[in-house]
Amino acid sequence: MPGSTLGRRFKITTWGESHGKAVGVVIDGCPAGLDLCEEDIQIFLDRRKPGQNKYSTPRKEDDQVELLSGVFNGKTTGTPISCIVYNKTARSQDYSEIAACYRPGHADYTFDAKYGFRDYRGGGRTSGRETIGRVAAGAVASKILNTLGIRLLTYTRSIGPVEIDPSHMDFNEINNNPLYMPDSQAAQQAREFLDGRLADHDSAGGIIECRISGLFPGIGEPVFHKLDACLAQAILSIGAVKGFEIGEGFHAAALSGSENNDSFYMCNGQIKKETNHSGGILGGLSDGSEIVFRAAVKPTPSIAKKQHTVNKDMENIEISIKGRHDPVIVPRAVVVVESMAALTVLDLLLENMSARMDGLKKFYEK
Amino acid sequence: MPGSTLGRRFKITTWGESHGKAVGVVIDGCPAGLDLCEEDIQIFLDRRKPGQNKYSTPRKEDDQVELLSGVFNGKTTGTPISCIVYNKTARSQDYSEIAACYRPGHADYTFDAKYGFRDYRGGGRTSGRETIGRVAAGAVASKILNTLGIRLLTYTRSIGPVEIDPSHMDFNEINNNPLYMPDSQAAQQAREFLDGRLADHDSAGGIIECRISGLFPGIGEPVFHKLDACLAQAILSIGAVKGFEIGEGFHAAALSGSENNDSFYMCNGQIKKETNHSGGILGGLSDGSEIVFRAAVKPTPSIAKKQHTVNKDMENIEISIKGRHDPVIVPRAVVVVESMAALTVLDLLLENMSARMDGLKKFYEK
Amino acid sequence: MPGSTLGRRFKITTWGESHGKAVGVVIDGCPAGLDLCEEDIQIFLDRRKPGQNKYSTPRKEDDQVELLSGVFNGKTTGTPISCIVYNKTARSQDYSEIAACYRPGHADYTFDAKYGFRDYRGGGRTSGRETIGRVAAGAVASKILNTLGIRLLTYTRSIGPVEIDPSHMDFNEINNNPLYMPDSQAAQQAREFLDGRLADHDSAGGIIECRISGLFPGIGEPVFHKLDACLAQAILSIGAVKGFEIGEGFHAAALSGSENNDSFYMCNGQIKKETNHSGGILGGLSDGSEIVFRAAVKPTPSIAKKQHTVNKDMENIEISIKGRHDPVIVPRAVVVVESMAALTVLDLLLENMSARMDGLKKFYEK
Amino acid sequence: MPGSTLGRRFKITTWGESHGKAVGVVIDGCPAGLDLCEEDIQIFLDRRKPGQNKYSTPRKEDDQVELLSGVFNGKTTGTPISCIVYNKTARSQDYSEIAACYRPGHADYTFDAKYGFRDYRGGGRTSGRETIGRVAAGAVASKILNTLGIRLLTYTRSIGPVEIDPSHMDFNEINNNPLYMPDSQAAQQAREFLDGRLADHDSAGGIIECRISGLFPGIGEPVFHKLDACLAQAILSIGAVKGFEIGEGFHAAALSGSENNDSFYMCNGQIKKETNHSGGILGGLSDGSEIVFRAAVKPTPSIAKKQHTVNKDMENIEISIKGRHDPVIVPRAVVVVESMAALTVLDLLLENMSARMDGLKKFYEK
Repeated sequence: MPGSTLGRRFKITTWGESHGKAVGVVIDGCPAGLDLCEEDIQIFLDRRKPGQNKYSTPRKEDDQVELLSGVFNGKTTGTPISCIVYNKTARSQDYSEIAACYRPGHADYTFDAKYGFRDYRGGGRTSGRETIGRVAAGAVASKILNTLGIRLLTYTRSIGPVEIDPSHMDFNEINNNPLYMPDSQAAQQAREFLDGRLADHDSAGGIIECRISGLFPGIGEPVFHKLDACLAQAILSIGAVKGFEIGEGFHAAALSGSENNDSFYMCNGQIKKETNHSGGILGGLSDGSEIVFRAAVKPTPSIAKKQHTVNKDMENIEISIKGRHDPVIVPRAVVVVESMAALTVLDLLLENMSARMDGLKKFYEK
Repeated sequence: MPGSTLGRRFKITTWGESHGKAVGVVIDGCPAGLDLCEEDIQIFLDRRKPGQNKYSTPRKEDDQVELLSGVFNGKTTGTPISCIVYNKTARSQDYSEIAACYRPGHADYTFDAKYGFRDYRGGGRTSGRETIGRVAAGAVASKILNTLGIRLLTYTRSIGPVEIDPSHMDFNEINNNPLYMPDSQAAQQAREFLDGRLADHDSAGGIIECRISGLFPGIGEPVFHKLDACLAQAILSIGAVKGFEIGEGFHAAALSGSENNDSFYMCNGQIKKETNHSGGILGGLSDGSEIVFRAAVKPTPSIAKKQHTVNKDMENIEISIKGRHDPVIVPRAVVVVESMAALTVLDLLLENMSARMDGLKKFYEK
Repeated sequence: MPGSTLGRRFKITTWGESHGKAVGVVIDGCPAGLDLCEEDIQIFLDRRKPGQNKYSTPRKEDDQVELLSGVFNGKTTGTPISCIVYNKTARSQDYSEIAACYRPGHADYTFDAKYGFRDYRGGGRTSGRETIGRVAAGAVASKILNTLGIRLLTYTRSIGPVEIDPSHMDFNEINNNPLYMPDSQAAQQAREFLDGRLADHDSAGGIIECRISGLFPGIGEPVFHKLDACLAQAILSIGAVKGFEIGEGFHAAALSGSENNDSFYMCNGQIKKETNHSGGILGGLSDGSEIVFRAAVKPTPSIAKKQHTVNKDMENIEISIKGRHDPVIVPRAVVVVESMAALTVLDLLLENMSARMDGLKKFYEK
Repeated sequence: MPGSTLGRRFKITTWGESHGKAVGVVIDGCPAGLDLCEEDIQIFLDRRKPGQNKYSTPRKEDDQVELLSGVFNGKTTGTPISCIVYNKTARSQDYSEIAACYRPGHADYTFDAKYGFRDYRGGGRTSGRETIGRVAAGAVASKILNTLGIRLLTYTRSIGPVEIDPSHMDFNEINNNPLYMPDSQAAQQAREFLDGRLADHDSAGGIIECRISGLFPGIGEPVFHKLDACLAQAILSIGAVKGFEIGEGFHAAALSGSENNDSFYMCNGQIKKETNHSGGILGGLSDGSEIVFRAAVKPTPSIAKKQHTVNKDMENIEISIKGRHDPVIVPRAVVVVESMAALTVLDLLLENMSARMDGLKKFYEK
């Protein structure tokens, strides 16, 4: 599994299982001199903390992060930053049943196929708890981006069939509802919809949208590390994400060139675009306008409803998944999507520093 | 631009500009002992060759590939395979105009923003000709996959608003129409639709679908190099692709868990799935069923229709793009998508070889 | 500092400072199914533990390792293995003086030059304690190599001017003396020599030799990841190492081709070499004979003797280094060299698995 | 063989065999805006060109380089630079004999062991011709370093037992003798020594020394990509190099701390070192003084003298190597060592740009 590291300049390596001793991340390549404390990271982790309302797992974890290295006198030192969160309320007894069977929609079978066996407790490495490391690192990346005037805004665009009304979008609403929707009316409808799914012992998915503003043009590394390609990898690496699109995305396939192209024009001596169908990216590089992308999240596979499946003895069986599960993971995944986007943008921002001779000369001249 | 290399085990590095001397690729990590000749690669390149019909650029290039290294006595030697295709009909005069202005929907502006200037001849590095290297490498990867019984099938799912009818899908039709659609009726409609766009001096996009069969379960490297995450990066790295989805994709967001989950069952001693909403991937690993993904391709940005834009002197201007352009790039992109998928799957297949101690011991025991 | 990760298949990422909360390592890419417990790692860590005799720092640390992830029911699961060792006896007061000055032979000045400031407590990241992560990972790598019949033997070849007598070499002696020398007489002389250096408030260096037996021919990845090149990087990455040589090494420069070449001959149906001047490597690949390399370790820079230097206020000063330092680090570095060699060999052994089509086909055929 | 790429920011990928169609390199990550023409590269290639005198192979190759991409209007564009050199005088008939036997000191056996077979013509990939790609890339790296005031000086320190006299070192002499020695008297002795070896149908090795001046302090990425570790890998990746040392190197092992430490002092407001035993590196980072390292080169293994070996039929045989070989490769390897050093230093110089928050902020502020 040599795939636990992401990034080339701002590198993260996550580790840990749902019911092991702890989960964590090592951040390597953080520039020295950033003011950083545990509270900076805790704010992000609290956004994904379980047990906050009936739409998330009742498992109670306070998910307190501890900084073990890389910070001295309140500043990053340029050395690896190790963050750890201990698993406190692991209840392995809940999961004895799933040791012996392959849950539909889960990675039980594929992990067994790959590794020969697996840590079945709470999903082990495939648990949503693995994202704690991503979010902790994302908090650090976001702080750096903020110092450069780059800001990320992420929210739930739809839950099941309930979508926000773009004409009623109000970003101030995002934190006013447990679903992180920028539309109070849609949020209310979505809650009612989820109540129905809960009553049915079933679950729901949704779409998350992320906007990145303040990004300079020219960020991304052709031809394989284009900004959109790296974002796609980062977002699809989140469990349960089944689709990624940027700007008009799949809708662009049906447009004509004249509809989809964004015209350039001059505005106060700056090059601007009249529209933003591109979602802020041209040729894989940021074009100076807002980056806008969406991630499709599948419905939680753990449902109490009866399902057919097979067990490890190769017998057909019926199961009903017990345990502490989210009926919809979209709201808790919002901060994960934002973190992955922040990590990706920062990494490419650092990569871009060596793109030009004049930048190099200016950097090193005394 | 240190982003021209893709893959960790089967690595490719592409190089070259549209109107430079040549374009090419170096393939590093190809196992020794594969029968390989130029014809194996030429077959793939011919699928993306320009000038084949009125829906592709009239630029005539025979795109003959030459193998410069890595093959001896008809077999790969394990050393880097260097492939080159000379640019024969570069007509730089066509492009003098675009040197001075930023074409909407193109990377002219973002390349200037990043690098300070650009090779403007025919789009330079951002030209579709860059994909020649990808397709040449994809041919080699596909040949290896075929020896293991893994096959890829790629086709046009829609052109503009014209989509194939899944109930009429006939894979034998794919090579019977210039649009590579597996539905002769849809292909006919799409051609009529494109004729309209051509008459309007406008362009169209579409959706490409790829199916990979015969893949073993367990391929992919959690958590950042999951199979779907790597496919997403590879596909989004293709110019003009604006979206990627796997299995139900964006549609999954509106389904319930019980609808979207694929039940397992036993079939002749094998674990099978009753449905394939997952698109062949669970937890980022192949699950043994067919991999199915789609890529959304935007309409060609080069259109003869008048557009507003700015020039390098920061003046608002109007342009009408001349030159030899495809009114729709979807058909020629089909083999590019297939190549990127083959490269990704093969790379992860090689990575998977060290997943287990028993595999390691068996491999090295005498 | 994105340089804290080593390896491509068996990857390690170390983190931690001498006087921070803890030091550790994340191992990614360990094959699933290896029997592993904390004791396996502890045995290696005990070989580098401080405070064992008067030739190592009197700082007392029991360096108990804790496994936080990646192991379940006594076996590795294929997921990242996180190892942590808490720093228990950090005494920061010892180091208040060095906060303000640049110690000769240390990285104080260069870290300030690079990062703007540094964690000066006990050398921070440049402390020998950083090697704990390397040794923990090396223990795991060695265990895997052992299951394949590959064994490493590492020892002190010289301390200052005192060298072992090759004709008296007895590997059973290595663990009978605190200097890990395979020659009891030389060990006794070296101890006397060190007593003199201690009396002078001075320090000593030495040479470490490592032998790897049982390695298959063909391991190494031309042309930049040759086995010797990777070993050189791994060994030079250890603080205080100033030279690396393989086989005859620097001595080879004065030999003739006929003296330095190793003749092949047949022995019981096996290809063998009459001599081993090459140190077990030809063309960057293992040749099936014993790998033999040496590392030159400089004298400990921390000495009580008065030295000239400058402080952070740019003033010339005199210092005498206090604190708990090793008069010679060679003996404690023996296990570090062995660990780095084990990590390198294992990584390349895993890389080699995809070298040939027949190996690939055999691996995946049912 | 996924080991043909070196570097993370300034990446090179070499390809090609001795008697294939061509050899070459793709350079990825070269900053845009560097003035570059084929002549810049040719000057470096001419320094390693064969056939210049009786101490190098009589094979005549003019080794004319061609730039195929990445340069436009005389400047690099930031896209991959592809360099090619055609093999013109490949005489495969010379090598028919070695197809069937394993030459002592060569990689014939190990390549067969790894890949199952090999391109035996002229050593194939293991030929010295592979270094053409390295030297071409090194020329580009050197040009960039020069613009920053960083200069490399490389020369032969010894040939066989004949070493330069450090007290007579005159760098102006380097280009006055075919052995590139900075000491005319030693050069004369070395020529006489080589004449003797030639008469004996035997060969010689030697030591190459490289000095890098003008490098800023703080370059290198702890802990695994330290400057000295990266140099060691780069230098050991050159065929025939058997040892690497920096500063005092192996000699440091016998010194005391007080002898080996370099005292700092203030000089015109700058921090300087009284001595340079460290070879310009402390803690793996450049310390602002001259980088000095040495590489030990083994004697050419191809000798006309009779040797024992085995053939592919596993029979003991005697051989005498014919063909066009260098009796000593040290002089031609001088520019290879310099190139590898330039590539390494430049790569780490680019990596260092993201080390600090203040550097990042200054770079991106408008």
